[in-house]
Amino acid sequence: MALFMDVHHMDGGVSIDDVVKAHQADLATQSGYDVQYLRYWVDEAGGKIFCLVDAPDAEAANTVHREAHGLVADEIYPVQEGV
Amino acid sequence: MALFMDVHHMDGGVSIDDVVKAHQADLATQSGYDVQYLRYWVDEAGGKIFCLVDAPDAEAANTVHREAHGLVADEIYPVQEGV
Repeated sequence: MALFMDVHHMDGGVSIDDVVKAHQADLATQSGYDVQYLRYWVDEAGGKIFCLVDAPDAEAANTVHREAHGLVADEIYPVQEGV
Repeated sequence: MALFMDVHHMDGGVSIDDVVKAHQADLATQSGYDVQYLRYWVDEAGGKIFCLVDAPDAEAANTVHREAHGLVADEIYPVQEGV
């Protein structure tokens, strides 16, 4: 398993309620892919979403987003957390 | 206080050791600005750094980075954490 940060750019902004629903769909979908969406942060007016996810690889994380709600991240980076 | 996610783009990559040192400088500097750098994630090869920070405003967060080590974020977004 590895840690990834993904970034979504939503033209015109995004509502936190819609992102909460999408995240719930991720949680319902992820177990079949050995993926865990851990935390996420939303800039509603700016239309940015950052998702921290533990996954075997970036494609597995993207697959969960695609299957759960279709909104695949625009960027995804393998990260380590600093201490 | 408000929550922000900032993003640094480091051409040619970045070493986690250098980011750890920069973060320690942030921690030593932030109290004078009512800022708290909370967590951060690093993509060494891709040269990306994401910092989660609680601050009165984006400029205060940027000021701490500037004063601590000079590496001001390329992007900074006001965010709320989804639950």
